[in-house]
Amino acid sequence: MRIGILGSGLMGGKLGTIFARAGHEVVFSYSRSHEKLEELARSSQGKARAGTPRQAAQEADALLLAVHWSRMDDVLGKAGDLSGKVILSCSLPMNTGDTELVVAHTSSGAEELSRKVPKARVVSAFNTVPSEVLFDVFEARHKKARPSLMYCGDDEDGKGTAAGLIRDAGFEPVDAGPLRIARYAEPFALLVAQLAYEGTGGPELAYRFERMGK
Amino acid sequence: MRIGILGSGLMGGKLGTIFARAGHEVVFSYSRSHEKLEELARSSQGKARAGTPRQAAQEADALLLAVHWSRMDDVLGKAGDLSGKVILSCSLPMNTGDTELVVAHTSSGAEELSRKVPKARVVSAFNTVPSEVLFDVFEARHKKARPSLMYCGDDEDGKGTAAGLIRDAGFEPVDAGPLRIARYAEPFALLVAQLAYEGTGGPELAYRFERMGK
Repeated sequence: MRIGILGSGLMGGKLGTIFARAGHEVVFSYSRSHEKLEELARSSQGKARAGTPRQAAQEADALLLAVHWSRMDDVLGKAGDLSGKVILSCSLPMNTGDTELVVAHTSSGAEELSRKVPKARVVSAFNTVPSEVLFDVFEARHKKARPSLMYCGDDEDGKGTAAGLIRDAGFEPVDAGPLRIARYAEPFALLVAQLAYEGTGGPELAYRFERMGK
Repeated sequence: MRIGILGSGLMGGKLGTIFARAGHEVVFSYSRSHEKLEELARSSQGKARAGTPRQAAQEADALLLAVHWSRMDDVLGKAGDLSGKVILSCSLPMNTGDTELVVAHTSSGAEELSRKVPKARVVSAFNTVPSEVLFDVFEARHKKARPSLMYCGDDEDGKGTAAGLIRDAGFEPVDAGPLRIARYAEPFALLVAQLAYEGTGGPELAYRFERMGK
């Protein structure tokens, strides 16, 4: 698959690297420096290159949207027409201080994004684990018990693409239903962040949903 | 320990039974019928009896508050003075149709409860798993990998009591910090409910936080 990364920071940089190592063709875009994008492409050791948001979006089978919420309109403007595109969004709708959600309860970041690009196929994914755990999970992908990663969305094709990429990254995809479930998933992401960054034991935290008595 | 159950429905009935089987002294209270309370006490096969909310609260080392949000003021009024009491609350602040949170984002059910009984030691616990999984987890408590159960609160003594009871019930307690984290935990509970009741595989769902690379 061709995967465009919109926002090559902690999440986007690592996930793009993982997608490239899993055999996908990746375009890294939207970082403060073009050099960083080129370094990411080089060090990914896969089929990856640096580009503009528009280049990342062109011909992409899936886009990973991993920008700070405050940069959302800017990156969407630069990416161009996203009609029909599958967008996996891991952007949480945080305030500029990253202390709380600016959209919650009666809506969610994922739903707001979907309203901004109504012809795109938005899936909320990869936002419920800290970036610090991603490489550990990818490296452990051949072990039996994988961590879960929940995703939600209203477009079945988009969700299928998301599930495949979640599996490529070493997680077990967990379909949580329609996009409005992001209203629960985004606060859950903050709970995971609290445990990862304020708890004891370090930020390499993942989670697993388990059915008991089976 | 003496444990008073305020609200002996699906959660309270099962958790009271589990606490009694774990060796605690339990008083079941606040059900539509006194007969149901007596049946719960009998079938728990432990040191359990039926009582009024006031009897459940008297001399209790810990109270489990497991009523529907709409009954909160009523049960608190009937329980009497709760100063100094450790209250484990698993009540989510749901509307009467159980479709959404009536308190969220800028506050939480646990924080509202704490304002109602400011001299009690409120801990939010046992609200992030469905009642259907409780007996399965309790029966599997001697296995190595226990499911997690997160809790949060502002009173260290209360949290210590909560952690012990969580362990008695077969879960691994996960301290998520202060009571305001219930703002994330309560939507997380709805996410778990969505997966349990709308997902495939049945409602016997638990979760486990895992630190990777250790």
